[in-house]
Amino acid sequence: MAIVTLTTDFGTKDPFAGIMKGVILGIAPRAQIVDLTHQLPAFQITAGALAISDAWRFFPKKTVHVVVVDPGVGSARRPIVIEAGGHYFIGPDNGVLTLAAQQAGKPRARHLTNRKYFLREVSQTFHGRDVFAPVAAHLAKGSVRPAALGPVITDAATLTLPKPERISTRTWSGEVIHVDRFGNLITNFHLREFADLARGRISLLAGIHPVDYMVRSYAEAPPGEPVAILGSSGYLEIVLNQDSASARLGCAAGTPVELSFV
Amino acid sequence: MAIVTLTTDFGTKDPFAGIMKGVILGIAPRAQIVDLTHQLPAFQITAGALAISDAWRFFPKKTVHVVVVDPGVGSARRPIVIEAGGHYFIGPDNGVLTLAAQQAGKPRARHLTNRKYFLREVSQTFHGRDVFAPVAAHLAKGSVRPAALGPVITDAATLTLPKPERISTRTWSGEVIHVDRFGNLITNFHLREFADLARGRISLLAGIHPVDYMVRSYAEAPPGEPVAILGSSGYLEIVLNQDSASARLGCAAGTPVELSFV
Amino acid sequence: MAIVTLTTDFGTKDPFAGIMKGVILGIAPRAQIVDLTHQLPAFQITAGALAISDAWRFFPKKTVHVVVVDPGVGSARRPIVIEAGGHYFIGPDNGVLTLAAQQAGKPRARHLTNRKYFLREVSQTFHGRDVFAPVAAHLAKGSVRPAALGPVITDAATLTLPKPERISTRTWSGEVIHVDRFGNLITNFHLREFADLARGRISLLAGIHPVDYMVRSYAEAPPGEPVAILGSSGYLEIVLNQDSASARLGCAAGTPVELSFV
Repeated sequence: MAIVTLTTDFGTKDPFAGIMKGVILGIAPRAQIVDLTHQLPAFQITAGALAISDAWRFFPKKTVHVVVVDPGVGSARRPIVIEAGGHYFIGPDNGVLTLAAQQAGKPRARHLTNRKYFLREVSQTFHGRDVFAPVAAHLAKGSVRPAALGPVITDAATLTLPKPERISTRTWSGEVIHVDRFGNLITNFHLREFADLARGRISLLAGIHPVDYMVRSYAEAPPGEPVAILGSSGYLEIVLNQDSASARLGCAAGTPVELSFV
Repeated sequence: MAIVTLTTDFGTKDPFAGIMKGVILGIAPRAQIVDLTHQLPAFQITAGALAISDAWRFFPKKTVHVVVVDPGVGSARRPIVIEAGGHYFIGPDNGVLTLAAQQAGKPRARHLTNRKYFLREVSQTFHGRDVFAPVAAHLAKGSVRPAALGPVITDAATLTLPKPERISTRTWSGEVIHVDRFGNLITNFHLREFADLARGRISLLAGIHPVDYMVRSYAEAPPGEPVAILGSSGYLEIVLNQDSASARLGCAAGTPVELSFV
Repeated sequence: MAIVTLTTDFGTKDPFAGIMKGVILGIAPRAQIVDLTHQLPAFQITAGALAISDAWRFFPKKTVHVVVVDPGVGSARRPIVIEAGGHYFIGPDNGVLTLAAQQAGKPRARHLTNRKYFLREVSQTFHGRDVFAPVAAHLAKGSVRPAALGPVITDAATLTLPKPERISTRTWSGEVIHVDRFGNLITNFHLREFADLARGRISLLAGIHPVDYMVRSYAEAPPGEPVAILGSSGYLEIVLNQDSASARLGCAAGTPVELSFV
């Protein structure tokens, strides 16, 4: 029996996520359901795309990942499933799934049109419950093959993440794309595209704050001094030892970051 | 093996809910435990009653729903189980269960008196752990029949929700009963009692703010303009497209809402 | 199949805890994973130690408890497992495990050195994912014996909790060690060391606020008046009926509390 992960902006004060689990378990009683987060900032598609892109690779194949950041629910936007790298990604066709699906490899998207696998009554405000949860449960249970869910589409929405730009021979201009729970500033410089980060010889400008060097673990950073570190998902981060870089430096998602290789 | 849902005001910073799960799994190792929410406002019985009333119907029969908003824990208030519509509802006898149980149908309440199904030591401050969790686990496991838990009672506490009042031929006076995570204002006008809501020809006054028309999906609402929508649980809601109606209109639970059919 | 509990300061807005679950379920697909809390205050080792010490005893033997409050991740601090009282405790060697392990009885600690049971790539910033989760999964699954994980150590870090001091014949000086979700003030006076608490004849000074008597349940407290109560974990607490003692009295973790037996 497969795993179903849930990633939403539903919060935890209302029973929205729990209701989705009721629907899933009603169809697939032995599913293992895992919350990735329900605390995405409301309506922020990019935040959802980053969360599932960090997480999917740590789950076994056949896992069904449901991601619901869905300001267009009930409008013409399509509900979709993407098969990629042996995983399934289910959610609205607004780009929230495509970053992870591209990483997983060879994505094939389908428009979910077969109402047989939805709840009998489909609201126009809660497709997490009425469409995505039941389809995920049927896939997890193995009681439907993807081809039966709807036709392949080739124009699924993609997400344009801000890309670093070269501004001189050794210097690139990027930005903070996420602030994590500890106040660490996650930038859009990734080891994949910047292999030289592994050598650790860089300096940074985070907003107006110079960051002079790179450490390998948080504990190496002198108290009170912002340093760079290669985070556990491969992104370059700006951090403080046991403190919030975001609060101390006044930086947030969108703050420009300049990276220079020394 | 049945499902056990948990709905509490215990928050998530302390291990209270996790401790209940330890007790449940110690008795029923294969139970599927689902958190509905632990973020109910502290001591707010009505909020708990609304949460479980929204959620129970999306779970299969035999599900055991534990709801703990329990300011009277350790006092003379009784611990109860209500069988209704094939579901079990467990919690304190303060009205938090009755709304959902009435909806589920043919509620039969019992006073939990058989200490054989409690933890050996019962505190006067944490019946979620010592009484409700173990009883729920025994029901989920099928190792006890309800009749063995205690005698039927016919005077279980009920909850009086604010009811809309007719104030003229086409106008009703109601109120906001809940603000959800997105800032949507959930009113006490329900499709069950106001079938004409489905026709969508209404106007509203939310506090001092006119709401001129109804949409079918959030995305239909013009940016910045409050509109009415029939929510996924059947209540009339006042919402903004990708924004918080609560914050923009200064409305909260208790704010009066006037509904006029056009 | 055993239970794995998770106690961290990872928060719930990032998918950190969910990623740990992916790793665990990839190794032990039938594990029952229980969140105790992920909302520990960042880097507060004592808070983590208190949370797991409150919770472990309500889980069956063989449960694997993973506790990650780990400011030293990637430094020389050791990853450890402690067997105690039939339970396993896994986390960093910074004292976060020892309080619970001592309570469980006959603790035996091992340094986790066998990389065969880690993820293939081990980061220096996320041992919850790369070390603790996979080791926990292997123990839960029964696919490794503790002796194979690494050598026994006898110098695991311990935690020094503030101890009450006697300041006169009948009076002790202690402090608030935790404020729970309801604003209840948990003190470091425990029934174990202060058996006379059970008799209930005490008075307290919480900061500058006198607390004149003890009740057995919250509901016995007159509205607006702070009272003492023996909490569900055996600690003496200062509470208000349906209100926050922390907010009303301006007390927090660290506030001195004087206890006098009458």
